[in-house]
Order: sequence, then structure tokens, then C-alpha cells
Amino acid sequence: MLALDLGGTKAAAGVVDGGGRVLSFLVEPTRAEEGPERGLARLFDLGRRAVHEAGHEVAAVGIAAGGPLDPERGILLAPLHLPGWRDVPVTAQAEAAFGLPAVLENDATAAAAGEFRYGAGRGRKSLVYLTLSTGVGGGVVVDGKLLRSRGNGGELGHVTVDWRGRECRGCGRLGCLEAYASGTSIAERAREAGLNAATAADVAAHAADGDPVAVAVWDETVEALACGLVSLVNVFEPDVVVLGGGVSRTGEQLLGPVRERVRLAAMGNAGDAEIVQSALGDHVGVVGAAAVVQDD
Amino acid sequence: MLALDLGGTKAAAGVVDGGGRVLSFLVEPTRAEEGPERGLARLFDLGRRAVHEAGHEVAAVGIAAGGPLDPERGILLAPLHLPGWRDVPVTAQAEAAFGLPAVLENDATAAAAGEFRYGAGRGRKSLVYLTLSTGVGGGVVVDGKLLRSRGNGGELGHVTVDWRGRECRGCGRLGCLEAYASGTSIAERAREAGLNAATAADVAAHAADGDPVAVAVWDETVEALACGLVSLVNVFEPDVVVLGGGVSRTGEQLLGPVRERVRLAAMGNAGDAEIVQSALGDHVGVVGAAAVVQDD
Repeated sequence: MLALDLGGTKAAAGVVDGGGRVLSFLVEPTRAEEGPERGLARLFDLGRRAVHEAGHEVAAVGIAAGGPLDPERGILLAPLHLPGWRDVPVTAQAEAAFGLPAVLENDATAAAAGEFRYGAGRGRKSLVYLTLSTGVGGGVVVDGKLLRSRGNGGELGHVTVDWRGRECRGCGRLGCLEAYASGTSIAERAREAGLNAATAADVAAHAADGDPVAVAVWDETVEALACGLVSLVNVFEPDVVVLGGGVSRTGEQLLGPVRERVRLAAMGNAGDAEIVQSALGDHVGVVGAAAVVQDD
Repeated sequence: MLALDLGGTKAAAGVVDGGGRVLSFLVEPTRAEEGPERGLARLFDLGRRAVHEAGHEVAAVGIAAGGPLDPERGILLAPLHLPGWRDVPVTAQAEAAFGLPAVLENDATAAAAGEFRYGAGRGRKSLVYLTLSTGVGGGVVVDGKLLRSRGNGGELGHVTVDWRGRECRGCGRLGCLEAYASGTSIAERAREAGLNAATAADVAAHAADGDPVAVAVWDETVEALACGLVSLVNVFEPDVVVLGGGVSRTGEQLLGPVRERVRLAAMGNAGDAEIVQSALGDHVGVVGAAAVVQDD
């Protein structure tokens, strides 16, 4: 498959074989501000180069992008991270450009499919995937089947942890998981508390060094993430929870305490869910898009 | 189908035809304290009388009960509302008693299946069902398919609304939806605030009369329920949300303000979910058990 991952800042293209192996992988800036016509032309060109580099025929095209989008009709409705790209029939355009069938899916939903089929969820029956990045998104596989959506993907980042809590930049409501566990929020809360930190990784590093302000922000992040995950595992009882996105790269500093809290707080069997890091890393977008083609 | 609904205080049996019509319906006390052997003997006897009264042959038996239970193996593990009923192979015993295939499912999951197939979710593709009763439970249908669980059903009552909130009697964690929206909690919070109220219905009546203490408790209930529902509709984007259980009988006094808040606060399409009252009422248990047999 040719897999295209259309992000707000970066676009990636890769050829992925039936076993989930990435045969080629190219990345370049999306330049969303130039609009959908030039943007898609460049994306499709990147795709052609990926096919050439892989030296491998492809039979279908999978496209992952941020929502809201309509996966059934293959249309980008009004993606938050592609301002001005309204009602873009990306599937039809990809089919015309490549002469192949194409499928569009929400990027977090696709990532869940990728981790389930080829990554950290391989061999399991059910999975919750959460990406902790600029925002928090995710996807769910129940009994081997990807929960597809009506456009936003499962908005797993917008479960509440505190109804009177911090305003969520993603949706404007108070106290969403995203308002605490996104990279943006972690760095922002640290700066509000007086810490000199540009990113969540800075906060994690300061916390590891024992800086009390950073430790407090990190602990709150752990608490919020564990709380949101308990809600999600109580609802879905998945075999495995996979955490991806930049914030998850802090590894056991995040996963260790989150794992312990979820195990203690979740109901019955739900607490048995394993909590692990993404296995696909930077490739999760293209492998996810390929998995959605496979599922389709 | 013969459908059996094994509750903590009441047991019901009914014959339900393929169109979801209830041909007979009998209820009697469960007397859980007498233990599973005598309890099940009485339940099966109630079932036989329901078949006799319906004057209709049955081909299978559906059983709904509170969890934790194992639907795959047909075993009651340690149901919260049937103390001492541990590891009871209820499906095998029903099959022996009736000479028919039997299926066991969590009662809230079964109710979701019933409302979807025969009740307020008829003709829809996806549904979230929530029962507001002694506790809060629920079930989900996605794309026509019931989400079955590993034993507790989807524990929809144990999504968080406030991580530093009220202790939940169901799971011990802080700030679950159940800690605010169960009938038990509504009455309890009202009494703590000095109101003379035995039940949630009393609180609703006082609130309708303008009692400021009751109004405050009711408003908090509305806020908590709306908050929990926003988390759930953001995750599932269902066509319809069905509210059942005793608390839902307060009707528009609850549904009106909850509906408005969910529409405003949910993300994108998720806010389009209709929010309606259970259509099956007292029959939801047996119709749900019958729907699970149909699905199976």
C-alpha cells in the first residue's frame, strides 16, 4: 500500500507491505497555508517518490489526516490543523492521481489500527490507543474491530477528568484529559508555575532532576492521565493501552506511575489492561493509514 | 425466547417474541440471601410459569444479571447485588433445566441491546444506554453491534466527572458519574444538605416546587450527568443516548437541561446525539435478555 499521513506541519508518505513493514518513508513540510490544491499536489508527488524509492507496486492508497473529516465519503471537512482546507474531496483526488482505490481515516483512529495490526497491540483482541501530542486523540479496537467514527474519531482526549478544571484549548470545555496531558498543556502549566520550560520534555527533564515545581506539574499530569485512562478502561476493558505521541517518549517516567494508578483504580478486570509505549514511533501515521486500507 | 432478569431484589421472567413483544411477564422477590441453588430453582420455576402463561413454545433462554460475570462461559463470578453467589454456572444450569440453549449477559449491556433492537434505539445505527438506578451502568451499540465485555459490561457509570470529587460507593474512586447521578447519591446528597428526602424522586419533587436546597442538588446532578454524557458521546458519537432506570422517570426535568448542555459542550457531530428516555421501562430487563439471544 501507499500510505499518506497529512499532518498540520509535516506530511509523510511511505510504502508499507502486507506485513506492516515500511519499505520507504519520506517526510516534508505540509505548507498548509498554501491551500489544498497545491498541498495535495505536493502530497501526491511525495507519494509517487515513495513508490519509486520502494521499487514496489502498490494496489491502494491510505490517507490519514486530522479531523473533522468524513471517512465514508472521503472528505476533509474542516481539519483543525489545516485551516482553510474545507470540504476537500481528498479520496476522489487521490484516486484520480494514482488510478487506485483510496481510503481516508482520522489520524488517531488510523494509528490505533496500525498499533493493533502491526505494533504494540499485535496478537491482542482489543486496544485503546492514545496519542499525547499537541493535543490528545485516540482510537479503539474492540474484539478485533476498529471503531470507526462519524468524523472526529473517538475523541478520547475529551473525556473529563475535572468538570471545574482547566479550560481545554481543543474544545473549550473545562477539565478535559487534553487540558492536562497534551504536550502543549504540560509546558504551559509549567510556565504558569514559573518554570523555564519550552516543551513537555523540558518539564520531564526538570522533574527527573528533582525540581519541585516540575515534579508537581508532572505528578498532576500523571494523575490526570491515569484518571482519564481509568474512565476509558472501565468503558472498554481493553487488553492493552498504547500511548504514543511526543509526551509518551518520556517512557517509564510517565508509564510507571500511570500503570500503577490505573491498576489500583480501575474496576474488576479492567485494571488488567497492559499499558505500553507505541511500537511504531514516527511510522505510526503511515503504518496506520496502511492498516486502515487492509481493514477496509 | 424465554427471558430471565435476575436482579438483587427482584427476579423477572417473560416470554418475548421475535418482534420484541412481551407475551408474559412475571416478577417476584429474588431472595438472594437463600443462595444460588434455591434462588435459581425459583427463577427457573418462574420461567416455566411465564412460558405456561404465554402459551407459546420457546427455543432459547436469555439471562440478564448484574456483574461481575463471565458472559462467554455463562458464569456469575461475584455479582455485587447477589452476595455469596460466587462462580455460579447459571447458563449450564438453565440449559439443564429447560433443555434449551442459554445465554448470559450483564444486565445493563442487555438493556442496551433491548433498547437498540426493540426500544428507543430502533432503526438507529449506534446507541449509548445509561441506567440511572441504585448505581449507574450502561451499554453501547456501535454500528449495529453490541459491545460485549469481559464481565462487567461497559462500566459507563465509572467515567470520572471530578477527580477530586465525591467518593463513589460502587468503586471507591473519587468523582465517578455514579457518585452524582445514581438515585442513591441524589438522595444522599440531598439529606447531607439538610433535605428530608428518601429517594431521588423526592428530591426531584422538592426541586420542582422550588426548594432551593433541592434545586441545588438537582442542578449538580444535571451538571454531572451532562458532563459524563459529553465524555461518552465524544468517545462514541452515537445516534442516540437512552436513559433508563428510576432516576430517568423524572423525565424532562432531567432530560431537558441535560440535552441542552450536551449539545453545547460535545465536540462536532457528537453533540447531534438525541437524548431520550427508555422506551421499554420495566420490561427492559427481559426484552434486553431476549435481544441478546437474538444477537447471539
